[in-house]
Amino acid sequence: MKLPLGYRFAATYAGIRKNSSNEDLGLIVSDTPASAAAVFTRNRVQAAPVKIAKQHIRASRGRVSAILVNAGNANCATRNGEDTAMKCCKALAKKMNVPVAQVIPASTGVIGVELDPDLIVNALPRLFDDLHDTRFPDVSHAIMTTDTQPKVAFAEVPLKGGEVQIAGMTKGSGMIHPNMATTLGFVMTDAAISPIHLRDMLMQAVERSYNRLSVDGDTSTNDIVVLLANGASGIKPSERERRTMQESLTLVMEDLAMQIAKDGEGATKLITIRVVGAADDDNAVKIARSIANSPLVKTAIGGTDPNWGRILSAIGNAGVEIDPAQVDVYIQGVLVCSGGVAADYDEVAVKHKLADHEILIRVEIKGGGAGETRFWTCDLTDGYIRINGSYRT
Amino acid sequence: MKLPLGYRFAATYAGIRKNSSNEDLGLIVSDTPASAAAVFTRNRVQAAPVKIAKQHIRASRGRVSAILVNAGNANCATRNGEDTAMKCCKALAKKMNVPVAQVIPASTGVIGVELDPDLIVNALPRLFDDLHDTRFPDVSHAIMTTDTQPKVAFAEVPLKGGEVQIAGMTKGSGMIHPNMATTLGFVMTDAAISPIHLRDMLMQAVERSYNRLSVDGDTSTNDIVVLLANGASGIKPSERERRTMQESLTLVMEDLAMQIAKDGEGATKLITIRVVGAADDDNAVKIARSIANSPLVKTAIGGTDPNWGRILSAIGNAGVEIDPAQVDVYIQGVLVCSGGVAADYDEVAVKHKLADHEILIRVEIKGGGAGETRFWTCDLTDGYIRINGSYRT
Repeated sequence: MKLPLGYRFAATYAGIRKNSSNEDLGLIVSDTPASAAAVFTRNRVQAAPVKIAKQHIRASRGRVSAILVNAGNANCATRNGEDTAMKCCKALAKKMNVPVAQVIPASTGVIGVELDPDLIVNALPRLFDDLHDTRFPDVSHAIMTTDTQPKVAFAEVPLKGGEVQIAGMTKGSGMIHPNMATTLGFVMTDAAISPIHLRDMLMQAVERSYNRLSVDGDTSTNDIVVLLANGASGIKPSERERRTMQESLTLVMEDLAMQIAKDGEGATKLITIRVVGAADDDNAVKIARSIANSPLVKTAIGGTDPNWGRILSAIGNAGVEIDPAQVDVYIQGVLVCSGGVAADYDEVAVKHKLADHEILIRVEIKGGGAGETRFWTCDLTDGYIRINGSYRT
Repeated sequence: MKLPLGYRFAATYAGIRKNSSNEDLGLIVSDTPASAAAVFTRNRVQAAPVKIAKQHIRASRGRVSAILVNAGNANCATRNGEDTAMKCCKALAKKMNVPVAQVIPASTGVIGVELDPDLIVNALPRLFDDLHDTRFPDVSHAIMTTDTQPKVAFAEVPLKGGEVQIAGMTKGSGMIHPNMATTLGFVMTDAAISPIHLRDMLMQAVERSYNRLSVDGDTSTNDIVVLLANGASGIKPSERERRTMQESLTLVMEDLAMQIAKDGEGATKLITIRVVGAADDDNAVKIARSIANSPLVKTAIGGTDPNWGRILSAIGNAGVEIDPAQVDVYIQGVLVCSGGVAADYDEVAVKHKLADHEILIRVEIKGGGAGETRFWTCDLTDGYIRINGSYRT
């Protein structure tokens, strides 16, 4: 992996989560103020750092020098949440000698527990001392909650003036049902791109990645995805080159989204849902989302049961006008439902194919339109129940 | 329990489900054609019996002589589904010497497997011989799928002319997320009520019962609720008396809905969600439904974790404009979240209260409107995973 130039990273254990073997505070610094774009949760209940981050991006006109992120506490539904987030941002801004609006706070963890700002403020000096351009993986570890592994993705984009780099990190792995943004995602590049172009690029990439992902249908209060472009490569892509970069950015973010689904709480299988032939992309996404959110489909996949009737029922619940007689369903490449009724397939063979850890459900609507999508989710297992029956205890 | 007059019941094992120790075919007969009203699933994929039942209710102008219901096979997404359903209805109509449109078919069970009509037709003679006015419980047993117990409810309504009876039966216990109707429900009375009034009464009762219920957010392809009124009591309620009957009918159907939630697949706890102070009832239902459909809330309740942050987050995801600072949440009567932040409560005490099998979540929106609702769901446990990972095998 090659990292984009001009960024430094550090992580430490600040005492926010109980288990001190996991770092819980991360810092991403751009050596010069980077262009920035961000998307935020649409949950009406928004964590304090989400509110502050929105204000800062607006006030700084899309310029960001640092992202300060903690795990172990969402700083949501807290009495002093905004004061806490601001106190941390101010302390960091002072240390860096940048306007406070150039600091983006982000939090993830339990909701409704007061977060002590001093834990973070007191950790800033050692975090600052540790900053290094190679410590990207440390931050990706520090933002994990119930994730079993860190989630990172990279792209190298050759442009006329030379190569630029894209690097992204994200976290899962429950309360995942993106709606214009989700979870925490930090993506950075060393290309020079204006905030306004960056925003377009982020929206397009989010639409095809984070917004096509569901673990459990619950949208978090703390979702935020930030894209930074600091220009440290000295390369400013042309309009055509921005389209090339868009493709790479979307691939990086799709990769991150897929990693979240694959590591969904209790998941043993990554499920990719492909829908083609819908009236339009929006309808395709609705159909895919309904399948992805059906606990009956997800438990069947977990149990290696090619129960296509549940997939068909979920399609019928998608809120999309559809004639079941036009629907074909493939599981692992095998046609199991043809024109809305059972196809002639070998049940035992499909069960064997379902033992795989990567599952493909393909829905084809015959004589339909050009609408299509890919969507990611995971199976629903007793691991999800175990994790979430005792998350706080 | 007193049953309404003029109905007879029978159930038998017809060989539709594998396990012959459970009956799988039920018959409800009204000795004279009853007024009838029905509501059906809004799933775009509809089982053959749903389609036929709709046609029959329309063609008979709301007159029904019999309901023929099987478990073990949904007769949905099947090649010959409508022919199969019609063949069974015709055989029964011929035996009863009534128009075929007065026979309502209903099915529940696995989707996508052909149903052999001869199994049902061949069972009709012995079903017919067994008809008896006391065998109501037999039918309530025969319609069970993953239910652990039959679900019945009764009401006795004193009117000026004498008493009339209401009796209802229903089934769960997965793919439960009613949308204008759900699952199977058969409710009958011996009062004399016209089909048009009966329809009003059913819609009102469904709105406050089946439509305020969710086990897993999946709406079945086979949902149907039928209300019959055969007039066998000789009593025709006045307009005012119909309002009295409406109350009793709603209570009976609320009771049935609650029983479905309580016996939801893998459930160990009935969760009643009470929302008050919403802008209107519709908003209250949206808030309650969002809580009821949150797997994170449901696993926390299963794990006796008073994790009100997840409840608040679900409220924020309800698609309703809401100021979290106005939200109070009570669990088992204890204020756990006050004005959107943690209340001063005894965590251990609330955990103890959550060990109960009947859980009450109360949401109060301060300074809001008069909108309110009650809504039922259940906890999400590894039992749900076990049942649904191997439903067909």
